[in-house]
Amino acid sequence: MPPTTKDRILEAGAEIIHQKGYNHTGIQEVLNAAKVPKGSFYNYFKSKEDFGLQIIDRFQSQFDRLATEILEDVSMTPLQRIDRFLGASMEHFHNSNYTGGCPIGNLAQEMGDLSSAFRKKLGDAMDAMVRAYAKVLTKAQSSAEISEHLDVYAAAYFIVAGWHGAIIQMKLTQNLAPLEIHRKFIFDHILKT
Amino acid sequence: MPPTTKDRILEAGAEIIHQKGYNHTGIQEVLNAAKVPKGSFYNYFKSKEDFGLQIIDRFQSQFDRLATEILEDVSMTPLQRIDRFLGASMEHFHNSNYTGGCPIGNLAQEMGDLSSAFRKKLGDAMDAMVRAYAKVLTKAQSSAEISEHLDVYAAAYFIVAGWHGAIIQMKLTQNLAPLEIHRKFIFDHILKT
Repeated sequence: MPPTTKDRILEAGAEIIHQKGYNHTGIQEVLNAAKVPKGSFYNYFKSKEDFGLQIIDRFQSQFDRLATEILEDVSMTPLQRIDRFLGASMEHFHNSNYTGGCPIGNLAQEMGDLSSAFRKKLGDAMDAMVRAYAKVLTKAQSSAEISEHLDVYAAAYFIVAGWHGAIIQMKLTQNLAPLEIHRKFIFDHILKT
Repeated sequence: MPPTTKDRILEAGAEIIHQKGYNHTGIQEVLNAAKVPKGSFYNYFKSKEDFGLQIIDRFQSQFDRLATEILEDVSMTPLQRIDRFLGASMEHFHNSNYTGGCPIGNLAQEMGDLSSAFRKKLGDAMDAMVRAYAKVLTKAQSSAEISEHLDVYAAAYFIVAGWHGAIIQMKLTQNLAPLEIHRKFIFDHILKT
């Protein structure tokens, strides 16, 4: 099934917003990139904000798909899955020349203070990331790969925070060193028996 | 000594850029806020980029002052200083209703991919933060407050990353919980003997 006009607008918008931020992205350039006539935007979106919120849904779905694929892959132990998940993210950033970062983190940084609708939507997306980690950490606890005393939800929160911070550092160093440090510290100090 | 015209422009610019980001900030609105006539901008700055880079210097000086004041305060042990430093940052964010975040982190997120001059300047600022932590961690190691086996530079890097990520989360939760989790995990799992 070919993408619908709305899909094409969302896809082009996701790419441009990911590169330039939400505020700096104009509706016209999104429509140009999607090769869609100007008038049609408001057939699909109530406003630029509505469009931005639907793009966040799109980013979250992409995260959910990858998280389900790797973090629920029972051919690995729970900790192996986390290691693979972080590794997949590093591979992605290596391939994108260490640019872009996490779309959810970027928009949280940019829009968290400016729009309560974005804040709510991004908060839900951040929670979904944390819950994906907490779920696999709970399994790691059941199989005694990590300490039974670890607060898995807080640990998941901490891991997700550190990852977002390391991505910011990566944008400056333009290499994987910050992400490697994050992975090493998480496994050496947090995710152990 | 009253602030110079240039100081007033930088002060107004720092505030607006911190709220809205660099790209979204217009020179005219900075000059309006600083109550400075339009023509004078280019007497002080070669370009908007030059202006942005000088604002980063200003943010870094503010960080350096606070870091020196607390992290080198010999009336506390090295770990007490880190605890106080994180606490001072939390107090700041509490007072600003959990908005704003870290100016260096925000600009790294926004500009790291877009301008090599910003990337270089922000990389230096990020390194300065890491070195400030590494310095006090080295003291903590000398006084056996933390393990002699800890790689203090990598640990400093990890702490700074986690802090920036927690600030992003804080913008969404609008409370200090993410920063409290960061502090607890750093002290419970990393900064110990």
